[in-house]
Amino acid sequence: MFNTLLNLKSATVKAMEKIAGEENVLSGKEELFVYSTDSTNTTEQKEMAEVVVFPQNTMQVSEIMKYAYKKSIAVTPRSGGTNVCGACLPKKGGIILDFSKMNKILEINKDNLLCKAEPGVIIEDLQKAVEKYDLFYPPDPSNLKVSMLGGSIGLSSGGPHTFKYGSTKDFIIDLEVVLSDGTILNTGCDCSKNVTGYNLTQLFVGSEGTLGVITQATVRLIPKPETKRVMLAYFDTLEDTSKTVNDIISNLITPSVIDLIDKNTINTIESFYPTGLLTDKTAALLIEIDGFKSALNEQYEKIIEICKNNNSSYIQTASTKEEEERIWISRRSSFGATAKLAPNVMTEDVVVPRDKIVPLVKGIQYICDKYSLKTCIMGHIGDGNIHPNIALDLRNSIEKDNFLKAKKELFELAVSLGGTLSGEHGIGCEKSEFINLALNQNSIKIMKQIKKLLDPKNILNPKKIFSEE
Amino acid sequence: MFNTLLNLKSATVKAMEKIAGEENVLSGKEELFVYSTDSTNTTEQKEMAEVVVFPQNTMQVSEIMKYAYKKSIAVTPRSGGTNVCGACLPKKGGIILDFSKMNKILEINKDNLLCKAEPGVIIEDLQKAVEKYDLFYPPDPSNLKVSMLGGSIGLSSGGPHTFKYGSTKDFIIDLEVVLSDGTILNTGCDCSKNVTGYNLTQLFVGSEGTLGVITQATVRLIPKPETKRVMLAYFDTLEDTSKTVNDIISNLITPSVIDLIDKNTINTIESFYPTGLLTDKTAALLIEIDGFKSALNEQYEKIIEICKNNNSSYIQTASTKEEEERIWISRRSSFGATAKLAPNVMTEDVVVPRDKIVPLVKGIQYICDKYSLKTCIMGHIGDGNIHPNIALDLRNSIEKDNFLKAKKELFELAVSLGGTLSGEHGIGCEKSEFINLALNQNSIKIMKQIKKLLDPKNILNPKKIFSEE
Repeated sequence: MFNTLLNLKSATVKAMEKIAGEENVLSGKEELFVYSTDSTNTTEQKEMAEVVVFPQNTMQVSEIMKYAYKKSIAVTPRSGGTNVCGACLPKKGGIILDFSKMNKILEINKDNLLCKAEPGVIIEDLQKAVEKYDLFYPPDPSNLKVSMLGGSIGLSSGGPHTFKYGSTKDFIIDLEVVLSDGTILNTGCDCSKNVTGYNLTQLFVGSEGTLGVITQATVRLIPKPETKRVMLAYFDTLEDTSKTVNDIISNLITPSVIDLIDKNTINTIESFYPTGLLTDKTAALLIEIDGFKSALNEQYEKIIEICKNNNSSYIQTASTKEEEERIWISRRSSFGATAKLAPNVMTEDVVVPRDKIVPLVKGIQYICDKYSLKTCIMGHIGDGNIHPNIALDLRNSIEKDNFLKAKKELFELAVSLGGTLSGEHGIGCEKSEFINLALNQNSIKIMKQIKKLLDPKNILNPKKIFSEE
Repeated sequence: MFNTLLNLKSATVKAMEKIAGEENVLSGKEELFVYSTDSTNTTEQKEMAEVVVFPQNTMQVSEIMKYAYKKSIAVTPRSGGTNVCGACLPKKGGIILDFSKMNKILEINKDNLLCKAEPGVIIEDLQKAVEKYDLFYPPDPSNLKVSMLGGSIGLSSGGPHTFKYGSTKDFIIDLEVVLSDGTILNTGCDCSKNVTGYNLTQLFVGSEGTLGVITQATVRLIPKPETKRVMLAYFDTLEDTSKTVNDIISNLITPSVIDLIDKNTINTIESFYPTGLLTDKTAALLIEIDGFKSALNEQYEKIIEICKNNNSSYIQTASTKEEEERIWISRRSSFGATAKLAPNVMTEDVVVPRDKIVPLVKGIQYICDKYSLKTCIMGHIGDGNIHPNIALDLRNSIEKDNFLKAKKELFELAVSLGGTLSGEHGIGCEKSEFINLALNQNSIKIMKQIKKLLDPKNILNPKKIFSEE
């Protein structure tokens, strides 16, 4: 604004205004400051972009990339900005492409079980739109009310439903991508079965905007499950909790959700959003099953039996929509409640093979205790994917320092258990320095070569995934 | 053998014997002749390899690749050799790596829902081994009794169960791959949820051995469905057949199999393997549902009702194992029966969005009639994936010429309907000249750059997927 008034617009700002229209460009300092953050409580210094552009269509994105390529200007794609790994922080300044105005659902095709949409569509809007056709788009990041399709593809987001249905990557069959030089690429077609050439689609899914800018996606849909049922089962030991999960699966049941909530999380939720959770238990499992009504009762009863056999000390069942909603509200409040404990919450996202879940959770508790960090642990136990939510005040240098030490040990622990740094949140710039822990040098070398091939000038979301100057 | 007796072994043969042991190397002319074919009825000239090696372990494969890289010798990986697109024909001679002796199942982990295996494991053996643990590996190429894991990953094979469960690509979470220079690479980890870096796993799945040689795979498993039921429903029009599929899905039912068998196929099966199929119908749908017993009856009855509402003229239900088996035998006999019509059967594998299935099938019939080709059409209608099995005598130059013309028109038809060349069989050398039809130039350019990056000397399965010199 200030710059605009003084007519001090840079050449880049002017170029962006020419491409996307003045009303779709921000370059005021206050505006750029807002865009120096995403949902990450970063411990690092905040860089600012030079300009934020809201492209209206793919051709504009292509024009912007051509300009950026020619001038070697960094470009950071952004949709909802809800990620927690610094994936859309403008680490090298330059241009931020905000896709929130490319937010149209372009087609829902019931016969072909697919939906075409722009990157700015909010995930929940997409889910609700396809539900009207009795269709289901399962990927459900916890922040689906605000997170957008583009970012969820860039990070291959998961969610509670991933255990049964898979994560975002499993539902993307075609992408329109703008490459670093402005070339527009289509990676697949409208067929979910397609072995014609290499799988370029999956090269871009989860690449965090470092290989190309997603401007349109074709997602695969499935018929909507007829109904679902939920319960919350409490346990006194992690071993019993973990064995319950194994036993449910051994009984051929694949829950649509099987999430772990630890004692600290239960207590924190109950302190701030009381719904009557039992605060003296070691852990709880939120279990949802879905499918045909006729098959659910039997599974529901079987799960209750399994929980009891594994010493579940209390099982909160739900037979009405209200009771179900109460169970879900408690689970959904976990992050919000943790956020009330301290000014910042650092959410981690480690994943291990499921038979290592007990040592992982105990290890996390041990590490966080060692560094005196208030930690609420929850996660998608079926997938071995655990989120320690660590509440702290980043302005307190001791706390911050302890967190950084704990974070490193967390990653070392996950990797030592055969797991990796991230199951569904991505690497961004928050975990890039640890990528060597999880990936072998040969993998990193090939990934970097692919990056160089597709982005020779390193202008696409630089300083993400890999540690580099 | 002849060469061996005369001690005329080439340097390459000697090098392979040194690496893998004399007993694991073939270099006799008759032996090499056998390896100049796979299950493809190729219309092209047959090239012969210089040597066939049966590696015993990954280190040997690495040693072989180092040698081949140094000497710029072509290497063609091969497991079951059951593909039908010429994917393991040694188009540039050199070394064939036969993986049939690397055929161990290394680990089945029930808690982690995964299995580690070598490329030479037969798919059915893998399925049976995991079934003992009440687990299920869904990808089921029709030739699963002889086809092997390595090839099925190389081509991302599908099968009847792909409609509900996905194809091979959806079940591979980690690969050990030997690169062209002998480097050993691990692409993932033991977690199915993993967004740490680019998805290298899916870059190699379906790459037909052109980017690296797969030496070990970690596959994802799911709990085995409790039970299944099958039926065969006949229709007098393709429109009714197609609408039935849509209506089943609209009723929230996802059949585990929904395959189309056309009149010619029905008649051909009944001629050679009579099981009482109705030969006066236009088409039949083989429908299988699976899951919990308690939910199946309701779905079974609903499907019957839908079939009737869409004018199904006869529905063959099955209430015993024997009746089920009889229905499946007829479906499984389709290729074998077609093979009795003429010396050769050319199997195509086009795929379209499902709402284009009627024009696709009618178009195939039109094209094949035009060129007087005996054609039995079947396929995975739920996926829009159709296999025209064309019976002909390739020694008859007119028939062969007609086939080649029809094949080109088939591909043009599929692509014009928004589909592509291959849903589950791959491109190999049989469809490489048509790749430009299905993929845009930007995609092909990037794929070729990736190929060059990973295989700079073009020694890995050369002349596959892309048309080159």
